Amino acid sequence: MIMATVDLNSDLGEGFGAWTMGDDLNMLDLVTSANIACGFHAGDPSIMIATCRAAAERGVVIGAHPSYRDLAGFGRRAIDINADELYADVVYQLGALGAAATVAGSAVRYVKPHGALYNVAVHDHAQAEAVVRAIADVDPSLAVLALPGSALLAEAARAGLRGVAETFADRGYLADGSLVPRREPGAVLHDPSSVADRVLRIVTESTVVATDGSSVEVTAQSVCVHGDSPGAVDMARAIRHRLHEADVTVASFITEAVGYTRS
Amino acid sequence: MIMATVDLNSDLGEGFGAWTMGDDLNMLDLVTSANIACGFHAGDPSIMIATCRAAAERGVVIGAHPSYRDLAGFGRRAIDINADELYADVVYQLGALGAAATVAGSAVRYVKPHGALYNVAVHDHAQAEAVVRAIADVDPSLAVLALPGSALLAEAARAGLRGVAETFADRGYLADGSLVPRREPGAVLHDPSSVADRVLRIVTESTVVATDGSSVEVTAQSVCVHGDSPGAVDMARAIRHRLHEADVTVASFITEAVGYTRS
Amino acid sequence: MIMATVDLNSDLGEGFGAWTMGDDLNMLDLVTSANIACGFHAGDPSIMIATCRAAAERGVVIGAHPSYRDLAGFGRRAIDINADELYADVVYQLGALGAAATVAGSAVRYVKPHGALYNVAVHDHAQAEAVVRAIADVDPSLAVLALPGSALLAEAARAGLRGVAETFADRGYLADGSLVPRREPGAVLHDPSSVADRVLRIVTESTVVATDGSSVEVTAQSVCVHGDSPGAVDMARAIRHRLHEADVTVASFITEAVGYTRS
Amino acid sequence: MIMATVDLNSDLGEGFGAWTMGDDLNMLDLVTSANIACGFHAGDPSIMIATCRAAAERGVVIGAHPSYRDLAGFGRRAIDINADELYADVVYQLGALGAAATVAGSAVRYVKPHGALYNVAVHDHAQAEAVVRAIADVDPSLAVLALPGSALLAEAARAGLRGVAETFADRGYLADGSLVPRREPGAVLHDPSSVADRVLRIVTESTVVATDGSSVEVTAQSVCVHGDSPGAVDMARAIRHRLHEADVTVASFITEAVGYTRS
Repeated sequence: MIMATVDLNSDLGEGFGAWTMGDDLNMLDLVTSANIACGFHAGDPSIMIATCRAAAERGVVIGAHPSYRDLAGFGRRAIDINADELYADVVYQLGALGAAATVAGSAVRYVKPHGALYNVAVHDHAQAEAVVRAIADVDPSLAVLALPGSALLAEAARAGLRGVAETFADRGYLADGSLVPRREPGAVLHDPSSVADRVLRIVTESTVVATDGSSVEVTAQSVCVHGDSPGAVDMARAIRHRLHEADVTVASFITEAVGYTRS
Repeated sequence: MIMATVDLNSDLGEGFGAWTMGDDLNMLDLVTSANIACGFHAGDPSIMIATCRAAAERGVVIGAHPSYRDLAGFGRRAIDINADELYADVVYQLGALGAAATVAGSAVRYVKPHGALYNVAVHDHAQAEAVVRAIADVDPSLAVLALPGSALLAEAARAGLRGVAETFADRGYLADGSLVPRREPGAVLHDPSSVADRVLRIVTESTVVATDGSSVEVTAQSVCVHGDSPGAVDMARAIRHRLHEADVTVASFITEAVGYTRS
Repeated sequence: MIMATVDLNSDLGEGFGAWTMGDDLNMLDLVTSANIACGFHAGDPSIMIATCRAAAERGVVIGAHPSYRDLAGFGRRAIDINADELYADVVYQLGALGAAATVAGSAVRYVKPHGALYNVAVHDHAQAEAVVRAIADVDPSLAVLALPGSALLAEAARAGLRGVAETFADRGYLADGSLVPRREPGAVLHDPSSVADRVLRIVTESTVVATDGSSVEVTAQSVCVHGDSPGAVDMARAIRHRLHEADVTVASFITEAVGYTRS
Repeated sequence: MIMATVDLNSDLGEGFGAWTMGDDLNMLDLVTSANIACGFHAGDPSIMIATCRAAAERGVVIGAHPSYRDLAGFGRRAIDINADELYADVVYQLGALGAAATVAGSAVRYVKPHGALYNVAVHDHAQAEAVVRAIADVDPSLAVLALPGSALLAEAARAGLRGVAETFADRGYLADGSLVPRREPGAVLHDPSSVADRVLRIVTESTVVATDGSSVEVTAQSVCVHGDSPGAVDMARAIRHRLHEADVTVASFITEAVGYTRS
C-alpha cells in the first residue's frame, strides 16, 4: 500500500504597510508551503521578513509569489508588459524575497506567480517564458508551482525546471477540467466539509466532481487553500483534518534542502 | 617606494522606466566601483540588470545603493522611519540588486547608502545601525562605503563589517574637514582640471585645500565622482588622466571575489 | 441658555486597493465631518469616490485629509520635504478629492492634514505655511481643522483662512495641555464610557482631566474620533449618545454651502 | 475664401521627480494645446503646476493627459482594468490637474488619454465609456481629443461631449487610413521638412500620402507634435513655419473660456 501525500499551499504575507490581509499565523500552522508576496502586489519588506520568519519557525517551505507591479489592483489586472521587463520584474522580486528568507534563516524553494500573472501565464507563452527564464537565471533549483496544463509548466519543463501541479481546494470545475470562471455560479465553494471531501478525493482518487455531475480527472501535487477569504482558516483546518483521518500525509513537495540563499 | 592606489566610485543606474539619468556607459569606462540604485529612489528592475551587466562586462565592482522609499524625491528627503522598517527596506533592496547581479553573472560586493539616507546615517546611530544590521544579516562579507567619521562607519566597525572611507571629488571643504553645505558658495566645484588636482592631492598627500586656504587632512580609499551632472564624464576622465600621469593605480577596494550571490 | 454644539470628525476612506481599514459606513452614521484620504497615505480613487458618496448620502461634510506621499508608512513618517514640493503635493491631493466629491454630488469644505504631516505642521512653520498656501490657492473658502496652538492654525489665520480647533476624544492630556506621547502609558484611552464623559466635559466645560489629576483648559469646535481602532464604532456611538443625553447638538462646523467644486 | 485653422498639441510635463523629459518650455512656445501628464504615468505635482504655469503664461490651452497607473511603464502598457476603477482613476487625475491649473490661474479645457489608454480607447468601448463618463461627471464642458473613428470619440458623442479629431504629424499612414504600426518601417517620420509638408497637406487638403503612395483622406482639427523625441522642437518649429507661410492660422480648438476650475 502506498501512502498518499499532498502539499497544502496558501498565499501569505499579503498585507502592505498599515493594512493587513488574512490570518497568516493561523494559516501557517495548517499549510506546508507559503507563497509569500514580494512587494509588487502586496507585501512590504517588513511583512515579507516577518512572514518568512513565521514560516521558518513552523518549518513551512517558503515560495516566492511574484506579481505584476500593481499595488492598487492587488496584481489582479492583466498587464501587457514586454517580456524582458517582466523577466526583470520577476528577478527583482525573487531577489528581494530571497534576502528576506536569508535574514529569517531560511531560503526560497519555489515560485508561484500571483493573480493576473498566474492567469496570463496559463496561456501566454511569451510571458510564461519570461517568468521561467527569470527563475532559471536566479536559481535553477527552484520549483515552479502552477496550473496543470499551463504554458508556465510547459516552459518550466522546457527550461529543465521542476514543475509542480496544483489544484484549488475551493474552486468549481467544468466537465472539461477547467475552472468555473469567477463570475459564474459555482465558481467558489464555501462549505468547509464539502471542500474537504473534494480535496480528499483529488488526493486519493485524482478526480473531482464537475458542475454537471461528471467526474473529472485532476492530478495535483499541491492543493491551494485561499488565505484571505473569511472562513479561510476554518476551511484549511477542515481539509487538514479530513486528510489526517484518511491517513494522507500533508507535506511539502520540497523534500531536500535546496533553494537559493547566500551560502 | 609605495605605489598609491585609489578607487573611483559613482552612482549609476539612476534612471527609472522611460527616464534616464547620466551617461552610465561612459562613466562605467572610467570608474572602478558602481553604486547601483535598487529601485527605491531610482532604478527599475530592467535598468538594474542592464547596469549590472554593463558593470560586469567592464570588470567594475558592483555596490548596492539603497535609499529611502522615495521615487518622487529621488531619495533626497530625510525620512523619520522606524529602524526595523529601515532594516527591512535595506534587506529588500540588497536582495533585489543581488538577484540582478546574479543574472548578470556577477555579485554585489559593497553597500553605499544613497542621498538622504547617506546623510542621515552620518549622525543618526539608530538608522546607521539598522542599515548595518541589514547588511550583516544579508551578507557580512559586504563592505560599507561611507563618509569618514560617520555613524555608519562606526556601526559597521562595531558589527565587524569592513568600512571603506570615501571623499567627494567635486565638493568644497571647510577648515574643520566637513563639506561645504550645498546651499553655500564653493559647495560644488566644476572645473575638471582643478578637481583632478584635488583628487590627486587627496590620494597622494591625504590633504585638501579648504575654502579658507588652509590644508585639511583627508583620508580616502575611494573617491566619489558624480555621474549625473553635466560634464560628469569629462570630469571623471580628467581625474582618471591625472591619476594615470602620477602613476596612481585606480582599482577597486575589493580585491577578492567575495560578495553575496547564489552559489 | 445657549445650547452647546460640537462637530465629530473621523479619518475615513483609508483603505487602498484590496485592503480595507475601519468600518467607514458605520462611522459615517455617527460623525458630522469626514476627513477623507486623498491617495498619498491611503485612499485609492475608487475608495475616495465611494467614501464621498457615502458621506454625501448621509449629509456628512467632506474634508480633505492630505498626507506626505507615503503609502508604505501610511503617512506616519515625518518627511523633510521642501516647502514648494509639499505645496504642490497638497494642491494635487485637494484637486483629486475635489473631483471625487464633485462626481459624488458634493464638495470639499475643509482640510485636515494626516498623520506625520499633521504633527509636523504643529511646530514647523515652513511646512505649515506650504499647506496653508496650497489650501488658499485652491480655495480660500476652505476651513482648516487642526490642533489648537499649532503653527498650522497660526498660518491659516495669517492667510485669512478659517481655522477650526479640534481635540482628540481618546487621547490623554498632560498638565500643560499637551497630549501624552503615544509611547507613554495613558496616551490612548479605550473605555467608551469614560471617553464619552471626557468629550462631554470638553464640550460643555472646556476642560479635561490630565494624567496628574489636574484640570486643563481645552477648547474644541470639533472632536476627533478615531475610526480605525477596534471598538471605534462603539466609542463613537457612546460619545454620540452621551452628547445627545446632555442636549449637546452634534453638527458640522461648516454651516453654509461653501467649498470648492466645479460650478 | 476661408482661412484654414489648425491646433498643434503636444504631450508635456512628462518628467517625474528628478527626471526630465523633453524640452517643455520650447515646445510651449510652438504649440497651442498642452496635454499635461497627471501623475499616473509621469508628472509629479510640482511639475504639473510648473507646466500649467508655463502654459498659462504663453496662452497655451491646458488639457489633461490621464493614463493608467503605471509609472514604471510610462503608461505604455495596456492594463485590463475594471471600468469603474478606470473611471475613478480618470476622475482623480482630472481633479489633480484641475487644481494645478487653478493655482496657475488657468483651467483644464480638454482631455486626451495617454499612451496605452489612448490606444485601448480606440477600440475598447467599455474603457472608452469609463473615460468619457469620468470626463462628463467632472465637467461636461471639457472636449475630448482623440483619434478619428475611435471608440472614445463615439462614446464622447453619445455622452454629449465635444469630440476633437487629431492626427499625428510624424506618423506614417497605410492605404486604409490607419497608422503604420510602430514596429514596422515607415512608422515614424524624422525629417522636419517633409513632416511639415504632410501637416500642411492634412490641414489644407485633408489628405496624406500613404506608404504605398496612395492618397488617404484625413480630417484633423488638431495635429499632435511629439515633444519627447530628439529633434522635437526643430520639427515643431518647421511645422509652425510652414503653416505660417501658407497663411494657416495655428490656434486652439477651444475658442471660449470654458473648462473646469474653482469659481
